[in-house]
Amino acid sequence: ELVRAMDDFFKENESLRGVKVLVTAAGTVEPIDPVRYIGNRSSGKMGYAIAAEAVSRGADVVLVSGPSALIPPEGLKEFIPVESAREMMDAVLREAEDSRIVIKAAAVADYHAKEVADQKIKKNDKELTLVLEKNPDILFELGKRKKEGQVLVGFAAETQNLIENAKAKVEKKNLDYIVANDVTKPQAGFNSETNLIKLIRRDGSIEEFPLLSKRELAGIILDRVIEEKKIQKI
Amino acid sequence: ELVRAMDDFFKENESLRGVKVLVTAAGTVEPIDPVRYIGNRSSGKMGYAIAAEAVSRGADVVLVSGPSALIPPEGLKEFIPVESAREMMDAVLREAEDSRIVIKAAAVADYHAKEVADQKIKKNDKELTLVLEKNPDILFELGKRKKEGQVLVGFAAETQNLIENAKAKVEKKNLDYIVANDVTKPQAGFNSETNLIKLIRRDGSIEEFPLLSKRELAGIILDRVIEEKKIQKI
Repeated sequence: ELVRAMDDFFKENESLRGVKVLVTAAGTVEPIDPVRYIGNRSSGKMGYAIAAEAVSRGADVVLVSGPSALIPPEGLKEFIPVESAREMMDAVLREAEDSRIVIKAAAVADYHAKEVADQKIKKNDKELTLVLEKNPDILFELGKRKKEGQVLVGFAAETQNLIENAKAKVEKKNLDYIVANDVTKPQAGFNSETNLIKLIRRDGSIEEFPLLSKRELAGIILDRVIEEKKIQKI
Repeated sequence: ELVRAMDDFFKENESLRGVKVLVTAAGTVEPIDPVRYIGNRSSGKMGYAIAAEAVSRGADVVLVSGPSALIPPEGLKEFIPVESAREMMDAVLREAEDSRIVIKAAAVADYHAKEVADQKIKKNDKELTLVLEKNPDILFELGKRKKEGQVLVGFAAETQNLIENAKAKVEKKNLDYIVANDVTKPQAGFNSETNLIKLIRRDGSIEEFPLLSKRELAGIILDRVIEEKKIQKI
């Protein structure tokens, strides 16, 4: 009886055994000077939950994370802390090479300061103009380089036109799935323990979920990814 | 013997009994849009250490804190979480009214975005210009309103001309002490458990300390504040 229970336990938890899963999490930080930066409100909770869930299913998980107050889940193959979008891109493109599943939950800054001051900027002027320059689009680069059999999942944190913006992203970035969440909804999105998401597939179909914990949603996202025949063939 | 040990214990820990101490900590967050913000690298560790040390000495401690991953110390009279510099100023000027000691360890953003977008800014342009407007100078306002018998302590996180910048601040902002630290030094400043500080008094004298834990430095700063005859008269 015990043997059988353990067998079931391991079967359930081995659905990603030997599969390399790359997860990105938290927000990037773009320095303005040694003290100040442009950040965003991603806590990392969704990405860390996905990484933890993938570990519990036996995957070889690499987690690339921007600065976060969270403790990385145990059992990772590798934890790669990064700061800026450009640092994140370097790590992600390198690790994506041999990953079967890539889940990009990080909130990457779209812009960085064109000039980063070496010294703390002294506040003498009433107004200050900051010129920002576009960051590389990591998800777009991943989509361009996507290998046969690789599953690419993106996230879209939107405050308006959620579905349209998310569908456009699936196309443009060559994704298999996009997880869309409206960060203006209470108990959804940034720093919340729960999330309210829609899962949009490449074929345009939309699955809606009720308010669930980020860990439960992590399980659902991985279930859907595993259902893809690409992964079943492993 | 036990009674005497307890007596000593309480004596040591009651040096601020009944004294209202206002401490500010962590960095402020200035929104650019619902997702992005300008932040700074203060973790809040120095301010939280001062608040904890003041509580352990019997003070009525009000801690006004920007977003931080830290758990507020137990035994505070009040914990007031804020986000922007303007929110921090409102709370601080209100609470400073009847505080005997005000220690401003927070790293307040000098500028906020002139226009905050209601919706997430879509990244279409190669460059983006952000116009920033100066924030109110909370420490200057505190110095202007300083009451007879109130001790005001500021912090100066500098990356160059540490002493000159700090001395100018003492004068301009009507401070009793300024705690200056060079955040470019390893193991000093932001997010470190230790700090390397110089304590500059109103009379221009400078005390230098070796690398110490932030909690030890909190004790030293409070010792110096208590030595002021203003507080001894309480």
